[in-house]
Amino acid sequence: MKSSLPSWDRACARGPLLRFVDHNLRGLGQVMFQDNPFSGLLFLAAIAWGARAAGRLEVLAGAVLALVVGTLTAMWLRADARSLAAGLHGYNAALVGLALPTFLAPSPLLWGCVVLGAAVSVVCLLGAARVMHTWGLSPLTFPFVLITWLLLAAAYAFADVEGRALPPAQAVAAVQRADVGALAPADMLAGVLHSVSQVFLIGDGVAGLLFLAGLAVNSRWAAAFGLGGALLAVASAQALGAERQLVSAGLMGFSPVLTAIALGAAFPAPSARTLAYVALGTVFTVVVQGALNALFAPLGLPTLTAPFVLVTWLFLLPRRHVAATAEPADAI
Amino acid sequence: MKSSLPSWDRACARGPLLRFVDHNLRGLGQVMFQDNPFSGLLFLAAIAWGARAAGRLEVLAGAVLALVVGTLTAMWLRADARSLAAGLHGYNAALVGLALPTFLAPSPLLWGCVVLGAAVSVVCLLGAARVMHTWGLSPLTFPFVLITWLLLAAAYAFADVEGRALPPAQAVAAVQRADVGALAPADMLAGVLHSVSQVFLIGDGVAGLLFLAGLAVNSRWAAAFGLGGALLAVASAQALGAERQLVSAGLMGFSPVLTAIALGAAFPAPSARTLAYVALGTVFTVVVQGALNALFAPLGLPTLTAPFVLVTWLFLLPRRHVAATAEPADAI
Amino acid sequence: MKSSLPSWDRACARGPLLRFVDHNLRGLGQVMFQDNPFSGLLFLAAIAWGARAAGRLEVLAGAVLALVVGTLTAMWLRADARSLAAGLHGYNAALVGLALPTFLAPSPLLWGCVVLGAAVSVVCLLGAARVMHTWGLSPLTFPFVLITWLLLAAAYAFADVEGRALPPAQAVAAVQRADVGALAPADMLAGVLHSVSQVFLIGDGVAGLLFLAGLAVNSRWAAAFGLGGALLAVASAQALGAERQLVSAGLMGFSPVLTAIALGAAFPAPSARTLAYVALGTVFTVVVQGALNALFAPLGLPTLTAPFVLVTWLFLLPRRHVAATAEPADAI
Repeated sequence: MKSSLPSWDRACARGPLLRFVDHNLRGLGQVMFQDNPFSGLLFLAAIAWGARAAGRLEVLAGAVLALVVGTLTAMWLRADARSLAAGLHGYNAALVGLALPTFLAPSPLLWGCVVLGAAVSVVCLLGAARVMHTWGLSPLTFPFVLITWLLLAAAYAFADVEGRALPPAQAVAAVQRADVGALAPADMLAGVLHSVSQVFLIGDGVAGLLFLAGLAVNSRWAAAFGLGGALLAVASAQALGAERQLVSAGLMGFSPVLTAIALGAAFPAPSARTLAYVALGTVFTVVVQGALNALFAPLGLPTLTAPFVLVTWLFLLPRRHVAATAEPADAI
Repeated sequence: MKSSLPSWDRACARGPLLRFVDHNLRGLGQVMFQDNPFSGLLFLAAIAWGARAAGRLEVLAGAVLALVVGTLTAMWLRADARSLAAGLHGYNAALVGLALPTFLAPSPLLWGCVVLGAAVSVVCLLGAARVMHTWGLSPLTFPFVLITWLLLAAAYAFADVEGRALPPAQAVAAVQRADVGALAPADMLAGVLHSVSQVFLIGDGVAGLLFLAGLAVNSRWAAAFGLGGALLAVASAQALGAERQLVSAGLMGFSPVLTAIALGAAFPAPSARTLAYVALGTVFTVVVQGALNALFAPLGLPTLTAPFVLVTWLFLLPRRHVAATAEPADAI
Repeated sequence: MKSSLPSWDRACARGPLLRFVDHNLRGLGQVMFQDNPFSGLLFLAAIAWGARAAGRLEVLAGAVLALVVGTLTAMWLRADARSLAAGLHGYNAALVGLALPTFLAPSPLLWGCVVLGAAVSVVCLLGAARVMHTWGLSPLTFPFVLITWLLLAAAYAFADVEGRALPPAQAVAAVQRADVGALAPADMLAGVLHSVSQVFLIGDGVAGLLFLAGLAVNSRWAAAFGLGGALLAVASAQALGAERQLVSAGLMGFSPVLTAIALGAAFPAPSARTLAYVALGTVFTVVVQGALNALFAPLGLPTLTAPFVLVTWLFLLPRRHVAATAEPADAI
């Protein structure tokens, strides 16, 4: 447990309610790997701003509800106290709570799905943590991705859970040349900030700045990697000829932003070598985002942060080959 | 090896042929996790009844042929004697033998596929057991699901293996409101019994009762979890707005029935806590059944028991978080 | 490190440049599991011949570029020296370099993708080796398959990376009866030789003979398993009613050829028992090739060697159940 304000920590130590709030704020912070309640608070402010700007307060409500349900489920399942205190059981649930009201129409059953999804995301987190621990990996946002895919796909099968903003199921097809081209500087900037905010499924520049502030309050390196990842993602997507509108909406960049922060944090002492490795992973995440956008067309589902999860696992597995201190390598 | 009839065990100990029959009957019993030849015998009677009622005796023939081929393959592959005696090598093969004649047209090559599929399902079982053992999991019906998917998909590519009752490949689409609505009590009851019988790909109420009897003869708890799972599945599917016809045909409930029995058996001393966990897993299996029904539409393949396998693995991974005796949890 | 020519080994030991060439030639040899620079040289000759015959020298250029980038990436990532010397870091990169210019239109960005794909294939190889090592398995061509799928799928999303010979995305559908039937002996022979050459994405009989020579120069057993696998694959595909044109083009046989060589090498002392097991795996690879051909139709992607990877992992997991010396089996 780490925090910049000792008085907050003392207050949390005294009262169980405040401690519960602290766990939840850190849970929100962990969406971008920050074990800090003030990061979480700024992220919450960004979500509130974005939801208000889009006129969809149900997204804010979903995030808060799911976060609380997730933390309570983790307590019910006797999760490890230190992980709980670091917010590690809340971030996947919070993302489920952001995603379901984004893609599904409001209805009483939607809230039932938020509660169910948040609870099951914690089960999935505990399971995925056990599996991935075999290779020294963390579950990242895999539980959020899996459980949200399943609940969104279920909306096609159940009449009382209705899709609202799900992508239409359509054949795999090449992007139209007319939809591609150089972005105006303002759209480039929007693309960078939206790449940060879309990590939380929010397309809003001010929210993007608040998220960056939330990163910086805990780690300037994290903020730098996040911003750098967004810049690199927008530039690569443009260079490869991605759909203009996807780039400016931040939809080519949110997974690369997470890859950059996660890989950046994996190599505590940055060097030219590790920076090159992080950049390689970030650019490849842009490629994978494009690939999954194409392959998911027939499914009528969003990719969520699957490109981030896939590439980050891939690049973390051989991380000791990259770290500054050379260890003897395994034979393959 | 456990059985309610000592004289049967003594007879088996004397003769290798009877022992072989015992292995196979237990193999059939293991489709619903029962290591008991009388369970297997009642399951066989249920399959025979169902196949006869549907006028498709080739389904019965396929099950018996595949069961025997599976057991022989396991013996050829020098499978562990205790697992063999418990029927653990037969249940996936038996399911392959039920599924292929259900979805493919009768032909000489169909029987070749049954033999091939049964043999390879045992290879897959041994492999999956080795992999899943890493996390204390069993392969469940994963080998059946994987090998049957591959053989059914191959029917599209090979002219001499013809599909008969394969679902048509079509675009992912939302369920029609007109196909949804409250079921009459008789259809609800049919849905519950068919949810049990569809575990064996059979839609027949009498067969459902025979399967429940086969469970009860070995474990009343298993029968109670099976029946309870079926009731909960039918009720949840109705509450979510599933297609009426799918519910009454048991097609929303067979995976949840297996989830309920498998999770139920994982917590030997039921408590409010473990029952809530089993119920959560069972309801989530209904959601996953809906999700996979939607996502499999373009593939022209049935989901088989994939929802059961996925959810049961997911919920078994953190099982010590749920068990009555609290163990220290891992950090994640 | 093993080689039939001591003078070559001595020359390599003296000069780093020649050693680098040796690593790369062995890397090419490892596409079919041969740790021998002369196998690699013959494979290179076969690729050159095939590329020239097809008027697509960019395929040869792609293979060489990717091979070198892959080996350099492995050196940058401080790969284990013995594995490096055995060429184990080059074969996936080389295949990426063969596949991208085969399926994508030539353009400056194509070469960027070859470099990116080759580098990332080494990251993926190191990661996959770590994961699969858990169960005593090697990564096989999984890194090639995964990274190439992602780059080819990305071609749909990025306008400046254009598909050229990608299969059209279409609905899953049964093969047409008119496209099926007995092959003339010349087409059978073509099918056998192309099954070997298509391992390298080349459809050319002379190249097929050169590849067989490359196998024989290091291991006559490997050449025998390769040729036997091709014969068995063509015969099974015909017996099951595969599309005539796919069989004669070697497109039903390249994965089974690899399965046969890989499984054959896993059982050093062939017996009736192990030969039957290898044959079962080879025939099942034909089934899986058909299955994936069907299931990949909506994706607009080739299956690459996924059937080989899947079946070989499946059949290697229980390999000690098959080996001549009986070890005690695990309970499942």
